[in-house]
Amino acid sequence: MSLSLLEQLIESLRVLPGVGQKTAQRMAYHLLEREREGGKRLAETLGVALEKIGHCAMCRDFTESEICATCASASRDRHQLCAVESPADRLAIEQATGYRGLYFILQGRLSPLDGIGPRELGLDALAARLAEGEITEMIIATNPTVEGEATAHYLAQLARQHRVRPSRLAHGVPLGGELEYVDRGTLSHAFGSRSEMT
Amino acid sequence: MSLSLLEQLIESLRVLPGVGQKTAQRMAYHLLEREREGGKRLAETLGVALEKIGHCAMCRDFTESEICATCASASRDRHQLCAVESPADRLAIEQATGYRGLYFILQGRLSPLDGIGPRELGLDALAARLAEGEITEMIIATNPTVEGEATAHYLAQLARQHRVRPSRLAHGVPLGGELEYVDRGTLSHAFGSRSEMT
Ligand SMILES: [Zn+2]
Ligand SMILES: [Zn+2]
Repeated sequence: MSLSLLEQLIESLRVLPGVGQKTAQRMAYHLLEREREGGKRLAETLGVALEKIGHCAMCRDFTESEICATCASASRDRHQLCAVESPADRLAIEQATGYRGLYFILQGRLSPLDGIGPRELGLDALAARLAEGEITEMIIATNPTVEGEATAHYLAQLARQHRVRPSRLAHGVPLGGELEYVDRGTLSHAFGSRSEMT
Repeated sequence: MSLSLLEQLIESLRVLPGVGQKTAQRMAYHLLEREREGGKRLAETLGVALEKIGHCAMCRDFTESEICATCASASRDRHQLCAVESPADRLAIEQATGYRGLYFILQGRLSPLDGIGPRELGLDALAARLAEGEITEMIIATNPTVEGEATAHYLAQLARQHRVRPSRLAHGVPLGGELEYVDRGTLSHAFGSRSEMT
């Protein structure tokens, strides 16, 4: 017996992250009962977005243009470049900080065992850009994982080769975090990186 | 400044129940980074589903046909009819019990203040169906809320008028529930409805 349209809809909603059978059912009923207009808009926008959204030729962020709005903006500081692993990381920094420079989205991290090397992260293009001389500081904001750290060291070396100053985010005890619940590695690092109180 | 396609996608995902800004972002990135094919299928299925899915002429459940698969099935018991408030309630009963009879989905409950009366719940059609004489038992499975109870009483009266036996689900302490955490109304009802142990 073939699936009914409702069953197909529930099945296809499960492609969303964190959405299992129960949640997919609830979503399908919600759309059919109360949000037919919003659901139609979602169907159309999703179709167009998946067809048109590609990567910015400069920073590799998602965009439907050749160059994304940030890279094309005249009001951003073109001397600073912040390297992040993913578009979500870029968005987190953009929303949480007052950073007004440019970005470079690696779309991953160095992982030789998975076949992800400098080429896959677009580092040849990044090197060419650093060589142009406009960028003076590269803020390296990869994640504090083993692979993220290895990527950070590679990027720092690349920056120095082009006389660009590499910098990285401070690690330590999160604001509002209680020492008791901070993981040992972070606590050890924070202790070792203590600064004098003035 | 107009919204980018990515921003439009994030915005349109928020039509889903329980999906706020953060979750919508995560969903959009997930689809763009890892599930473009599944996302396209979702867009297409959602568009078709919202266009084609209507209500079954017999039971008012969602279906893309004139009559739903359950109502059209030759293997269901046509003497039992279970009345529920919503398609989700119908699905819960179908999945949890061995019920093999038919359903009637009210698509709501009596709520005079909201302008929802017998006509809005399709009770004229239900009465006509009860009058045909094929149904012998109507299992009333409305929710145990004030409006659900009022609806249940109305339905029971309608059933008796057509010499159909009304029945309702048992209420009481949930299996595995601890008395300490059962709400007072339920506990009081369960206590009053106690049965002799044999
Ligand atoms: Zn860009
Ligand atoms: Zn039906």
